[in-house]
Amino acid sequence: MIFGATGHLTATKLLPALFHLENAGRLAKNMTITAFARREWSLAQWQQHVSEALKDLVNEKTRTPQQKKLFAQFLNRFRYHQGSFDDLPAYQRLANDIHCESACIHTVFYLAIKPTVFATVIKNLALAKLNQPCGASRIVVEKPFGEDLKSARMLNKLLHQSFQEEQIYRIDHFLGKEMVQNLFVFRFANTMIESLWNRNYIDHVQITVAESMGIENRADYYDQTGALRDMVQNHLIQLLAVIAMEPPASWDADALRDEKVKVLRSIRAIPKNAVNQFAIRGQYATGRVEGNKSIGYLQEKDVPKDSTTETFAAIKFYVDNWRWSGVPFYLRTGKKLAKQTSFIAICFKQPPQQLFHETPLESICPNWMMLSIQPEKSMNIEIHAKQPGLGMETHVIKMDANFLNNNEHGLDAYHTLLLDVIEADRSLFIRFDEVEMAWQVIDPILRHWKIKNASNPMPTYRAGSWGPKETNQLLVDNSYGWRND
Amino acid sequence: MIFGATGHLTATKLLPALFHLENAGRLAKNMTITAFARREWSLAQWQQHVSEALKDLVNEKTRTPQQKKLFAQFLNRFRYHQGSFDDLPAYQRLANDIHCESACIHTVFYLAIKPTVFATVIKNLALAKLNQPCGASRIVVEKPFGEDLKSARMLNKLLHQSFQEEQIYRIDHFLGKEMVQNLFVFRFANTMIESLWNRNYIDHVQITVAESMGIENRADYYDQTGALRDMVQNHLIQLLAVIAMEPPASWDADALRDEKVKVLRSIRAIPKNAVNQFAIRGQYATGRVEGNKSIGYLQEKDVPKDSTTETFAAIKFYVDNWRWSGVPFYLRTGKKLAKQTSFIAICFKQPPQQLFHETPLESICPNWMMLSIQPEKSMNIEIHAKQPGLGMETHVIKMDANFLNNNEHGLDAYHTLLLDVIEADRSLFIRFDEVEMAWQVIDPILRHWKIKNASNPMPTYRAGSWGPKETNQLLVDNSYGWRND
Repeated sequence: MIFGATGHLTATKLLPALFHLENAGRLAKNMTITAFARREWSLAQWQQHVSEALKDLVNEKTRTPQQKKLFAQFLNRFRYHQGSFDDLPAYQRLANDIHCESACIHTVFYLAIKPTVFATVIKNLALAKLNQPCGASRIVVEKPFGEDLKSARMLNKLLHQSFQEEQIYRIDHFLGKEMVQNLFVFRFANTMIESLWNRNYIDHVQITVAESMGIENRADYYDQTGALRDMVQNHLIQLLAVIAMEPPASWDADALRDEKVKVLRSIRAIPKNAVNQFAIRGQYATGRVEGNKSIGYLQEKDVPKDSTTETFAAIKFYVDNWRWSGVPFYLRTGKKLAKQTSFIAICFKQPPQQLFHETPLESICPNWMMLSIQPEKSMNIEIHAKQPGLGMETHVIKMDANFLNNNEHGLDAYHTLLLDVIEADRSLFIRFDEVEMAWQVIDPILRHWKIKNASNPMPTYRAGSWGPKETNQLLVDNSYGWRND
Repeated sequence: MIFGATGHLTATKLLPALFHLENAGRLAKNMTITAFARREWSLAQWQQHVSEALKDLVNEKTRTPQQKKLFAQFLNRFRYHQGSFDDLPAYQRLANDIHCESACIHTVFYLAIKPTVFATVIKNLALAKLNQPCGASRIVVEKPFGEDLKSARMLNKLLHQSFQEEQIYRIDHFLGKEMVQNLFVFRFANTMIESLWNRNYIDHVQITVAESMGIENRADYYDQTGALRDMVQNHLIQLLAVIAMEPPASWDADALRDEKVKVLRSIRAIPKNAVNQFAIRGQYATGRVEGNKSIGYLQEKDVPKDSTTETFAAIKFYVDNWRWSGVPFYLRTGKKLAKQTSFIAICFKQPPQQLFHETPLESICPNWMMLSIQPEKSMNIEIHAKQPGLGMETHVIKMDANFLNNNEHGLDAYHTLLLDVIEADRSLFIRFDEVEMAWQVIDPILRHWKIKNASNPMPTYRAGSWGPKETNQLLVDNSYGWRND
């Protein structure tokens, strides 16, 4: 059951993912999908909406009879349940419908809704006793989970009044991404990689999630949220946790999440009086993005002219444990940046140079491992080799592994994650202690950035750039700089 | 001055290399090249011979005026000096010619001759006082340097009666190969590689130098020599030394060779009574090589019908030092094998598998690093990645670095090494203690293989195969096997 079925997330992510699973034969024959929404629609109207949302995936003209049959089968799974989120009788009717079904069914409630109505829906689900059907029931909660540590704890308490922890699936779609799952395999199936994965060999780590888009008519949400809450607290900190975690005892959901929590607990708290040395924010000004003129954040529709919401954040974290002590993790995200790209750059330590100090190899730079998450999915290793020919000169070669080539068409993080919910695998979902620790880590920054005074100005950056110039000051050793490729 | 100027090595290696250096502008303007040989040739005849030898490099029809001028300049460098190797007056005339030249010149004597005449030439050079011109003089000695430890020491003593060690350039052309020089850069300029380069991470090393050719009318040389002396004692043991050596204190010739000697000194002696557990020999029988029918070794012209000369050798060595204790180094070479290829295969240790033991990743194989020396020049790393798509399955991806692409046309080991001789850089030449230690290492095998009795049979192998089946028994853990690609 999808709450918020007529919304953007459902149309762009959930419906395509469900249809992909249908295509892959991964949906049980008797599984139904109930759309819960306010609009007074008939089932036929809803099905028309589904067809519209999937029109890029199912071209009516080129469809084979086999594909037509499959799509009809998919449409047949749907029911449409009209109701507003605060309309308890609508939930009760839903409960009745379910109880009229066969003896015992499993239910997934997917809350594809705004955080402002989380509480209402959760309470009504419980009042209608939908939280305890005779089969298993699961609830999927989208980000943001709270807006700071305190509100996250409240939301969690509310959820726990009606659902057990094992029923709750806090989704962070970054964990479903092919390359993020690949990180587990890279690290734990390769002696050559995991053996180097520590402070002895790694100089620092850069995590970049750059968007070239702006806020896209979502000022009401975005201006209340900002880059730190929208991206860092969830996606970037999750990436950090996956990169930095110890090998779990098993592939079990809790074993995996235990290790991520250990990383988050080891993150050095950012001192209240030195936030500026660890965290840089920014707001985009006018500029050009990918060739097109672009307005600044304060000129965006519905954004208050005096808004101090950050559209860019860059943070330096230290993970104070045996593996990572002294290795900075640089996280960076922003809107209207130069490129739409997410990648992790691992910088290895400089080799001792005495051997080459009288040769052209003198100024050798370190090895890098580049993990591109999106839109490219690839791993590069930058290695020094001898320049072919007479003489001992070096050049950097890129050893390439490109995953896109044999990737299934358009496989998206939601495909993986929806299947995991259906199959009750919580490995790639966030446990509350992870949420809690992530808020704990960024709360000092949130609090500092709330202060509005002259000593705490809001830096701006040109749309289409890589963020405010202050970002470079974060790097401990400027000789390497941020990787922007 | 080239001794053996009309021979095969001069035509196929030295002349092309010298011409390449001419092209690259690396030969001094006033440098002359004297060909010393028996035939009663005029200079014009010799120049005709040079033109013939280089006809593939300098196409008469497509030559530009610039190229014609360069080739004329090259031909003008030559002198032809007639004499047989035991003709002392010929050497004295040579000395006179030199003394008539300008005040002080540097001389390189290149002995491109059979080992049987080494002693004669060296003695006559000394008698004519060519070993001590007013400039520097250097002597280049081709393999094989002796035929066992004892004869190598005698040859060295003879050389040292007339030349100082710093005048002597013992050549092993494998050290001049692009990919072998690249090994120094790979190892000592890359934290990601050198950090893994030890017993903690490497399971074993395979060094293969496979030839698809047979003995090519060289029965008189080959039947006296065999694979062990012809290939293992020099090329393969040098490769082992370069792979296994510690980082030298500097890029200086002696610092480098000190480290190679340390490796050779650390090779565990093969016990007299257990040679068969460490070394496998073989002789090729009839078969098919690259599609063509091929006769066996005993049917080759001029090979005695009861010859017990090995055309294949595979040996397991241990380097008993802190870095390599317990890591087997497998060396393998032979004639009439399946492919013409030289490569080093590094097998890394199996990652601990507990994480994936209930998933399809269970039977994960180790990482390999493949260094191809010839004819391909490349490095591959075999890494495990997630199979793209739903589910957690793994596949091996090859991360590729191919050096051939931007290689200079036909750059050969001799180009590098001749330039090094001219520039007096001995780094890539063999010091006598290296030769000595290499003979020490293989002498027990030589002695054992000399014994002719029923308990010491000579295994044969089908021409076009990968050697006798006994070769597989060498591998400590058969689960990996020999890499043949």
